[in-house]
Formats: sequence, C-alpha cells, structure tokens
Amino acid sequence: MRTYTAPLRDMSFVIDEWLGAPSDWASMPKFSELDAGTAAQVLEEAARFARGRLAPLNASGDLEGARFSDGAVRMPEGFAAAYRDYAAGGWPGLAAEPEEGGQGLPQLLNVAWIEMLAAANHAWLMSPGLSHGAAECLREHGSPWLKAQYLDKLVSGECLSSMCLTEAQAGSDLGLIAAKAVPADTRQEAEPAYRITGTKIFITGGDHDLTPNIVHLVLARLPDAPAGSRGLSLFLVPKRRESAAQPEMNAVTCQGIEKKMGPKASPTCTMQFDGALGWMVGQPHRGLQAMFVMMNAARLQVAMQGLGHAESATQCAIAYAADRRQSRAVGSAAHAGQPSRADAIILLPAIRRALLDLHCVAEGARMVGYWLAHCLDLAAAAPESGRREEAALLASLLTPVAKASFTEAGFQSASKAMQVLGGYGYMHEFGVEQTLRDSRVSMIYEGTNEVQAVDFVVRKTIADSGKGLNRLLDVVRKEAEAATCDETRRVAQQLLRLCDQTAAAAAALIAESEPDPELSYRVAGDFLAMVDILLHTFAWARAFRIARPLADSPFYARKCETARYFFAYRLGDFDYRRSLVERGRANVLPHVNPA
Amino acid sequence: MRTYTAPLRDMSFVIDEWLGAPSDWASMPKFSELDAGTAAQVLEEAARFARGRLAPLNASGDLEGARFSDGAVRMPEGFAAAYRDYAAGGWPGLAAEPEEGGQGLPQLLNVAWIEMLAAANHAWLMSPGLSHGAAECLREHGSPWLKAQYLDKLVSGECLSSMCLTEAQAGSDLGLIAAKAVPADTRQEAEPAYRITGTKIFITGGDHDLTPNIVHLVLARLPDAPAGSRGLSLFLVPKRRESAAQPEMNAVTCQGIEKKMGPKASPTCTMQFDGALGWMVGQPHRGLQAMFVMMNAARLQVAMQGLGHAESATQCAIAYAADRRQSRAVGSAAHAGQPSRADAIILLPAIRRALLDLHCVAEGARMVGYWLAHCLDLAAAAPESGRREEAALLASLLTPVAKASFTEAGFQSASKAMQVLGGYGYMHEFGVEQTLRDSRVSMIYEGTNEVQAVDFVVRKTIADSGKGLNRLLDVVRKEAEAATCDETRRVAQQLLRLCDQTAAAAAALIAESEPDPELSYRVAGDFLAMVDILLHTFAWARAFRIARPLADSPFYARKCETARYFFAYRLGDFDYRRSLVERGRANVLPHVNPA
Repeated sequence: MRTYTAPLRDMSFVIDEWLGAPSDWASMPKFSELDAGTAAQVLEEAARFARGRLAPLNASGDLEGARFSDGAVRMPEGFAAAYRDYAAGGWPGLAAEPEEGGQGLPQLLNVAWIEMLAAANHAWLMSPGLSHGAAECLREHGSPWLKAQYLDKLVSGECLSSMCLTEAQAGSDLGLIAAKAVPADTRQEAEPAYRITGTKIFITGGDHDLTPNIVHLVLARLPDAPAGSRGLSLFLVPKRRESAAQPEMNAVTCQGIEKKMGPKASPTCTMQFDGALGWMVGQPHRGLQAMFVMMNAARLQVAMQGLGHAESATQCAIAYAADRRQSRAVGSAAHAGQPSRADAIILLPAIRRALLDLHCVAEGARMVGYWLAHCLDLAAAAPESGRREEAALLASLLTPVAKASFTEAGFQSASKAMQVLGGYGYMHEFGVEQTLRDSRVSMIYEGTNEVQAVDFVVRKTIADSGKGLNRLLDVVRKEAEAATCDETRRVAQQLLRLCDQTAAAAAALIAESEPDPELSYRVAGDFLAMVDILLHTFAWARAFRIARPLADSPFYARKCETARYFFAYRLGDFDYRRSLVERGRANVLPHVNPA
Repeated sequence: MRTYTAPLRDMSFVIDEWLGAPSDWASMPKFSELDAGTAAQVLEEAARFARGRLAPLNASGDLEGARFSDGAVRMPEGFAAAYRDYAAGGWPGLAAEPEEGGQGLPQLLNVAWIEMLAAANHAWLMSPGLSHGAAECLREHGSPWLKAQYLDKLVSGECLSSMCLTEAQAGSDLGLIAAKAVPADTRQEAEPAYRITGTKIFITGGDHDLTPNIVHLVLARLPDAPAGSRGLSLFLVPKRRESAAQPEMNAVTCQGIEKKMGPKASPTCTMQFDGALGWMVGQPHRGLQAMFVMMNAARLQVAMQGLGHAESATQCAIAYAADRRQSRAVGSAAHAGQPSRADAIILLPAIRRALLDLHCVAEGARMVGYWLAHCLDLAAAAPESGRREEAALLASLLTPVAKASFTEAGFQSASKAMQVLGGYGYMHEFGVEQTLRDSRVSMIYEGTNEVQAVDFVVRKTIADSGKGLNRLLDVVRKEAEAATCDETRRVAQQLLRLCDQTAAAAAALIAESEPDPELSYRVAGDFLAMVDILLHTFAWARAFRIARPLADSPFYARKCETARYFFAYRLGDFDYRRSLVERGRANVLPHVNPA
C-alpha cells in the first residue's frame, strides 16, 4: 500500500539553499514578510493535509470514480468533505492577492503544494486545480464588474472553475473552434451579456457536487469573428446566474462523462451550451491571449503533476525494494558460503540503477520546476525591472520544457517503479498502477507534449533567433564558473560542453530553418529533451556544489551520491538526444502511407 | 474504435522472403508437405478467427472482466463460445504432433498466430496460452501413464492448464518456493501419487469456466528436498481427478482473483492446494528443468504479445492520423496563402516520426521474432545435426532478448500511439488505453525483463565466454557480406561496426567480470538493449536488400522507405546503449539508502 510523505527536507533544500529564495523574498516588498521558517511551516501544514486528508482517498476515489446520472456528476465518497476542509483552510487562495482574500504567498510555495496534491491524489487535485489560473485570468482581463462578481469566490474556494477550449474537431488546433457567441438581448445584467452556443468536450470538472456554482471560461466566436485562432473571444459562463434577481440555472448542461484510463475520480465532461448567458473576458477576438494566462498556469501545474508522480513512484519503489527479499546480491553473505536465504532487492544492481534514476529524475525536476516558479515570482515582484524581465523570459522558456519533460518523467518513473515491484506493481492495491494510469494523461492535456516542443523550439527559440535561449545558457554558465574544487570543476567542464553544444545546435536550427522549414518540427521533441537534460545537469551541478562541503550529514551525503550517479550515468542522454537532432538535420522524413 | 487486421502481407514477407522458410521446410521431413501457399492459407484462416471472433470481445471483456464468486471464476460474455470455436477449429494443436491429434505445423506459424491473438485480444489469449507449453513439458518429461491421461486433452483443447510457480515470498526467486509434496497413501491410481500443499499466487487461468478440467503444473518440495531451486519437483495436479473410478474434485481451490491494471478478462488467481493429489513430472528435485520447457515456450509467447501490441498500436495510430485534421503542416496549401483549414495530422513531422518509429518497431520485431521461432523448428527438425545445434543455440540466445525487448516495445508503442491520438487515446473507446494497460504486464510476467537481461548476459553470454554470442554475430556478419550495391554496402558497413562493437563490449564484460563481479548485473539491461538494436539492424538490412530491387511495387517501396528511416534515425540508439554499458564499466553503483 502506498503511503505518500511529502519530501519536506528536499523541498526546503531546493527553496532555501538551491534557489536561495528567502533572500530574494526579502528584497521584494510583496514577500518581504516571508522567511524560510514561515515557508517551511506552510509546507508542513500542506504536507499534513495531503497525507492526512487526500492520500487516503486516492485508491478509493479511483475505484469508485466520478458518476454521472440525471445530468449531474457525483464525486466519490469523501471528496466533498476534503474540499470543504481545503477551502476552510484557505488553501485555494495560497498565492492569491491579500486584497482578494488570498494569502499572498509566492508561486514557489504554490507549486510545492501542487506537487504534494498531485502525489497524494491527482484526481482530487483536478477539481480545484484550475481555480488559480482562472482567478489570474480574471484578475488580468476581467472587467471590474465581472471581478466583483466572481474573483473573491474563486479565491475563497466558494466557486470552482472549468476551462472550455476543446471541441470534437478542435483539440491541438484551437483555430478550429466553432462555438458561437452572440450579443444577448437581455438587459437584466450590469454589463453587456452574450449568449454562448456550442459543445465542448474533455472538460475537467465541467460538473461536480463540490461547490454550488462553477465558473466556465469558454472560447467562442463572435458573429463578425475572423476565421482561425485570431477570431476567438473568451467568455465567463457561470453554471448558476447569481447576479440575476433570483439565482437561476444557466443554459449549460453536462451531457456525460468519459470512460478513461486515469484520474477516474475527476469527471471529464461533455458540456453543452445552449444560448447560455456569459460575459466577455478581455477584448473581442483576443480571447486566446486572455486564455493564455490560464493556460500557462495550467501548464506549470501539469508539469508539477509529473513531478508529484515521479516522487510518489520513487517512494513506492524504495519502500518496496527495502522490504522485499528475493535472490542473492553479488557479494552478499550467501556467496561466501552461507546458507541460501534472500537479500532485500534494494541490494541488486538492476534495482539500484532504477532507484537512482528515479531519485535523479524527481529531485532534478524539483530543482528545475521550483526554479521556474521562483522566476514567476521574480517576474511579478522583483524590484528591478531588468530582473523582472529576465525572470519572465526564463519562465516563458522553462514552461514548455517542464510541462513536456516532467510529465514524461512522471509516467516513465511510474513504469520504472512498477518494474521494481514486479507482479505486485501491476495490482491495484500497491498504488503504482494507478500512478502509471493517472500520470499518463499529463503528457496529453494542456497541450500535448508535441505541442510544447513546437512552442519551445519554433516559437520561443527560432522565432526569437535564440536570444532567450542564450540568456538561459548564460545563467547555466554562471553556475559552471562557481565551481570550487577539482571535482566540481570537472562537472563544470561537462556543463560548459553541454551549453556550447546546445548553443551550436540552436544556431544550426535557426540558420537552416529557412531553407528547410520542416526541420524545426522534425527535431523539436529531441531538442527539447536535450535542453531538459542540460537543465538537469545544471541543477545537479549546483546541488553538488552546495552539498559537497556538508557531506558529513546524511542528507547531503546522499545528495552528493545521487549527483555523482547522475554525472556518471545520465549525461549520455544528452549526447543521445543531440545525435537525434543531428540525424534530423541530415535527413528528411518520408511521408507515411496510411494504406 | 480499434479494428485489428492481421498484417498478412508482412507476415508472408518475413516467412517466405526474409526467412526463406518454405525451402527449409522442404528439407525437413517433419514439414516437407508444407509449402508457402498452405502456410498462407493457415494464417488467413487464423486472421479471420482473430478479427471475427476475438477482436470484437476485446473491449467488452475488459469492461466486464473475469468475475469471482463462490469459489469459481466466470469469464466474460462470449469468451466460452469463442473458446469452443477455437477448440473445434483445431487451433490448440496447431504445432502439436499429429500422433497426439495435433496439426504438426511449425512453431513459426504458431507464433504468427499468437501475434494475431495477442493483438486482437490479449486477455482471451491468456487462457489457452499456456497449453502449448504444458503439452510440450508433458511430452518431454511426463510418464507414459500421465501422458496417456492428459496429453491428448491438452492438444485437443478439452482441457486447459495453469503454471503454478509464484508464491507470495517467491517471485523472481523460485528457490524460495515453500509448497510441499508428500507421497500419498492412496493406491487408487496407476502410479505413485503425491499430496501437494501450499498457496500459489498470480496464477493465470487458475480457474475459469472454459473447460471442465484444468491441469495445474505445480512446483513444490519433496520432504527430503535440498533448499533452493535445486530442491523443487514438478507435479501435475488436475482440478478434477478423471482417472478415479468416479471423477471427483481435487483438493485445489481458487481463493480469489486480483484487481489489476490489465488483461482484466484473464483471471489472476490465488490457488490453494490442501493436500491435492498430483503426479510427478520428470525426476525428483529436477522440477525446474522440466518447468523450463514450459517457461521457454511461455517466454516466446510473451515476446509475441509485445509484437502483437506494437502492431495493433501502430494500426490504431495510423488510422487515426490519416483521418484526424488538426493544424497545418509546413509546406501545405495554407502556407501559400490559402484560407485556413486543417491537414490530416499524418502530414505533421512529429506524427510521422512517431508512425515511422512504430513501423520500425513492429516490423523489426516481427523479423527477429519469427527468426527465433524458425530456429526452434530447425532445432527440432533440421536433418543435419550441426544445423539443429546452431539453431538451438541461437534460439536460446534470442529468447530472453525477444522477451525483454518486444514487451518493452509493445508498451512504449502503445504509449506512442496514445500520444498520436491525444485526448481520444486516453479514452476507453479508442482501444489504445487498453493496449497500454494490457501490454504492461508482459514486461513483468514469465520472468521480469530484468531477469531476462541477467539470463542473457550472465548465463548465456559470460558463462559461455561469449561463444554463443559470437556465433550469432557470425550470422549477422554474413548478411553484411551479401550486400549488393553501394547503398546496401553502406548499410553493411554500419552492421559490421555494430557487430565489432558488440563483440568488443562482450569481451570487456567477460574479462572484467572476475575482478568486478557486479559489473555484468550493472549493465545487463543496456547490453541486452544494445544487442536488440543490433538484431533490428540486421533485420532491416536484410529486408532492405530483398526489397530494394522490387521497389516499384508499393509494398516493397514502403519497406525500403521504412528501412531507410531506420538507418537514418534509429542507429543512434545502439550508440546510446553502448555508451551506457561503457559508463557502467567505468563506474560502480552506489547503494541506495531507504531512509
């Protein structure tokens, strides 16, 4: 049976030591009252909630699933009670502004919290998961009247939200969205309303019984809208119209929920809008821009899901491997002639390889992911404009890389952990098979990982002539310059090599994209993976530099050991991906004949 | 919705052209009446059965699942009727001896048939799946009386069988098995009987309602047995004792079935033996040897499951990609200023990469897997003893490689196909999510893939001082010598490089195994993967040499295109795995601290 414990020690290592966040907070008026101790306290409480209230509902929620009948969704036993506690604890507004009723804490603590929620109960997280992004979107683009209606309800958790983008014919390609919005003839509301008509699919939390109202953020087309994605406007469509004289149901209904592989306790709804009343968020035809605020928040959250899955899979695998006795490890007592008994499989080399890989992935993603979140905080609240700009640039580059690579890592970690557990791993009761199923969706939603790769390579690297990437590489190179001894200098040399090769590969892609416009699409996934390994190498180099002088305490000793394993075994992954980019440069790709 | 069609054209390409099996059959008295036309006819009929009778039960069987109540397992709707047709059609005895009622066809056709069954309905295949191996085990090791009782029933399909090895504390390590066998005091049977006591877990098909009787092959310890795996004896324990004057139930009961991720229509049983009557198969304390006959057959079958999953995932992905319109492909009409519409995603580079990878994997595994099966036929029936011996050696080397690599490929192919389908792939109705779940178990059972790697590297390569591996490499080198033009010669050069590097890596492992006894365990998985890519390169080199002169017909043109993609994009996988073996040689592996 899985028992998830939040890795608080490692989290504070990343926040306090690796990032040095507390000293940054001190420099930012917004966070100047926050210190490492308070942050640790918040995370301790969060860990108690995740472990005590959510983890126990993970397997039962999966078995029971969300149910649909008579047009409404019923959540599994215990989900609503946990949600009430969550709202009562002030968790929905963790990173929201104090003037909206939020706690004003940094994104950095919010993502650590999301990591815990995802690890403890991915399906449960799905329901409140979009509120933060919806609130951000409304804050930035909503009219004062609309904000007054809904913002505090989102922040307090009184109201949850959904993100209505996908239609049957429009998934990765939002330009194909067909839902329509026409000005409403009603005059009962304080500002112009619209009637929204269309069918949206794959809508997470489109209906449920956690909150009486749900705020749907819906992409649709005005009558005069141009074709394609530049003709989309964003509308807020509530399940109930509370601003009406008498609260009444809106013309939006859940038509059913999907039968799917994972997050079974999270309803994936088909939503029908039949002239439902809504209000515009942002400008006409600029809905995608407004939605991107929510989508970027969602992408970061999905990345953290990957990290949460990697962590929980790692914990499962280690606990099992330490306990399970099977076969003799080379060099153990039996080989010296003792009677045959078995060793704990944690001694077997194949298992140690798996466990060390799992550690590298989860701890590496934690450093990179928290860095991304900290960049968002700096982008929003650093006092110097240059630092804000740099942080925003880094966050924009890191988001697609983290979304694609962490979610792939979460899934592959679950599979690796399952292999450690063998037959038991395939059974429901050990929890890993659920992690494997649940983690798989994160590679698909909020933009498939292929969409992330195109975003990173085509939009953020090539269109920008590599300027952003070069600034990222400058940050990495600075770490190399900080090497303090022979061993860290050897690591630094590797890190510089990876930077130079990444820069060269990017330069080649930029130069060749004009004569060979398909090139960047051909190699996008491998280039993203290459940069991901570079980022992990950067993360481990810094972790190693920090931990090495402290290695007489067990935590730092283990950190050094994992770092050394990473440098010894995992750097070849970079060369492999780089070779695939090279192969893609040298070779066109045939078309595939479906017959 | 998935509609599986057996790839008969590719199967006959591998059997007739790549292997040249018909001319080998002509030289073997056992198969001398078989020709390519008859073989193709058998496979056509098999394909009709797989598509018409089994594929339609795949999703429904998954949803309904096997059910356990009142000590008995009920199979999903339609499974028993399909089984009756299967037995009536003579399929259980496809490769069994004619004197036992079998059809005497080669293993080669049997594995093609298993590929189809696994692709159409993995869960259904699980029930009859062990019969072939059980029959082989009984044929080789059973007493004449025992054979007379059960062999023809297994061959006719009147009776199914289970393989009772695993106990809660004994999975990968069979030496820990605790089940006991004592001589029975009963005199009612024709030869000495034993009473078997113990609990076996994870028993596929331990109970079901497809056949009235089930033959359990059970590993247990005699009273005087030494500890460890050399103290195990094998017993045949029937569910009903039909040889008794009055048929009566034996003291073996199903205690329940597991809740697991996949093959939900295949019951995974806990079996309780309470002094159940059984008869010994083979010699006392030599049970594992007898069981190995069954285990090797099972490993080959599990390898074919991986191939079947890879094939069905590929078919799903291609059908969907050809149909689904989303975004514009670079260079398509829209980019020349036409109004925005979408292209079929099969035109997008990331999708083409995925589809070409899928093709490479499924077609490559087919060539390697069928070669392995053909080696078994040659080992059993080639007229020249040298050829028999060489074929047996190759089959013994290829079995663990195929089991580990094909099953990994089946799972990763399912995941890759899911990514092509995006959100739809995660939903039950498109079939891919079931393939992903079902395929995952094949990496675990019949010896985890880690166990296969140790078998291949430690037992079959290092213990043998690399002699077997070198003979395998000789076969591969011969293909390189057959190159016919500049393009095939360039491929041949690559193939020779891979052979040389494999030989060098093996030599280094052999030389260093004594000073560093953990080394081979540390790198086993990567060395196996390296050899797997070598085998695929060999397979594609030969396929390319055959197809190239025929490329004005579409089948061969496509084969050449896939081969060229493989050579251009996939050979780096070998270098990557080789670099991991090198890293493992150079670096010891730290121990993992569970705390």
